[in-house]
Amino acid sequence: MRKKRDRVAVLGPEGTFTEIAARRIFKNVEFVYCDTVVAVFDSVSSGVEFGVVAIENSLEGSVNTTMDCLIDYDLKICDEVVLGINLCLVVVPGTKKEEIDTIISHPHALAQCRRFLSENFPDARLQRHESTAAAMEELKRLKGSAAIGPKETAKIYGLDVLFENIQDAESQTRFIVISKKAGTGRKTSIIFALKDEPGALYRALKEFAKRDINLTKIESRPSKRKLGEYLFFVDLEGSLDDKEVKDALNSIKERTTLLKILGSY
Amino acid sequence: MRKKRDRVAVLGPEGTFTEIAARRIFKNVEFVYCDTVVAVFDSVSSGVEFGVVAIENSLEGSVNTTMDCLIDYDLKICDEVVLGINLCLVVVPGTKKEEIDTIISHPHALAQCRRFLSENFPDARLQRHESTAAAMEELKRLKGSAAIGPKETAKIYGLDVLFENIQDAESQTRFIVISKKAGTGRKTSIIFALKDEPGALYRALKEFAKRDINLTKIESRPSKRKLGEYLFFVDLEGSLDDKEVKDALNSIKERTTLLKILGSY
Repeated sequence: MRKKRDRVAVLGPEGTFTEIAARRIFKNVEFVYCDTVVAVFDSVSSGVEFGVVAIENSLEGSVNTTMDCLIDYDLKICDEVVLGINLCLVVVPGTKKEEIDTIISHPHALAQCRRFLSENFPDARLQRHESTAAAMEELKRLKGSAAIGPKETAKIYGLDVLFENIQDAESQTRFIVISKKAGTGRKTSIIFALKDEPGALYRALKEFAKRDINLTKIESRPSKRKLGEYLFFVDLEGSLDDKEVKDALNSIKERTTLLKILGSY
Repeated sequence: MRKKRDRVAVLGPEGTFTEIAARRIFKNVEFVYCDTVVAVFDSVSSGVEFGVVAIENSLEGSVNTTMDCLIDYDLKICDEVVLGINLCLVVVPGTKKEEIDTIISHPHALAQCRRFLSENFPDARLQRHESTAAAMEELKRLKGSAAIGPKETAKIYGLDVLFENIQDAESQTRFIVISKKAGTGRKTSIIFALKDEPGALYRALKEFAKRDINLTKIESRPSKRKLGEYLFFVDLEGSLDDKEVKDALNSIKERTTLLKILGSY
């Protein structure tokens, strides 16, 4: 009897950037397409073996929904993958280069294509939009315009790619794999909240520094419960199996009001 | 000759929560109503004397646009005010309590009114929405529903307040006053980015800790330029005129790739 294939929940529809990321990690799986990031977390909570979601993007910063869900759901991070973003100049099918007088995108995407734009569209009006996807969606309603964003998003919105890889420098998105099962590996993610005491963060970081544990990410966000209360999202180099990591976590535990261990991978 | 009144840019239309906050600080001024937070920053940059914008909210976290603008614009923070949020149950005019079967709001607003909801609407379906304002806007299209949010927002959307102050605990929003002129006071806000070195944040915080400078806020966000690069938004107790604060800032300057001093207030 053939073994049942694992299922992997991703943001749909077929062909999204998230699915491309998931295919880098998973072979021979069944994809479950979800409407939202929250729906991916729900699927994994209710039995789908894995989920893949974007967590951070060098163009648009953190994916807030993913960060919120990591707090709210009881799931682990068991792997990650970083994908380079191929920024493209896209248009409604049939639009020609000569017709383009306006180019819309997220401010950071426009900034990252400055060289290409000044060489190819020196007179175009640059218009800022909330996200690269929102710019592409808007494009349908605009004549003589182009948008900038990933090829995969253009495909979703039925747009034509006029130019590929137009970014001056490399842009990247980091995706994580979520699951009920913990993984193993040399990187560990945690979330914590500190007691409201002067120097609390300094003393918590000291527990890592004095054990030479390097933090590769430290992001803090308001807890959304009380002004002045923060949640810290930390990635550190080391495994939960390491004595030093265990000791550091035990020491900071006493200083925290919340300590959530998302796993090693 | 009568002195020309100062102008204060706020998010419009008339009667917003931001205007209410601004009126706590400014008397006898002329309000300039802007469509967006970005437009408030633009107004102040181009000559309006002051602007008032929300920066943090105990329900919905940081106001991302405000944080981004603090980086991008060359303006100072010169004052702040914290307002309590009066959460209300609001309906389309004419809707009666008995007709309500669905209540929509931001997840944190729903959570903060749990006690009121279970006592008054034990059978109602609770539906999550992106923000309290978006829930109120949506309300127009829904029959037999109510939304939860501030009274001031209800007024903007022409909704009726059925119940006031229904939150279990207190919610607050912090607003800042922006200007070209620096203020003075016992609190100082800065933004910095650190060189990519192990223990960089720990050593930066040490400069404050060893001088007994208390940090009342530390929030970090991806720089949106490169994965793994963070901007730190820090509020500290002390004035830019204090020797200890000056020394600490001079010391961390050597470790930063960016240090922006937003002012004392």
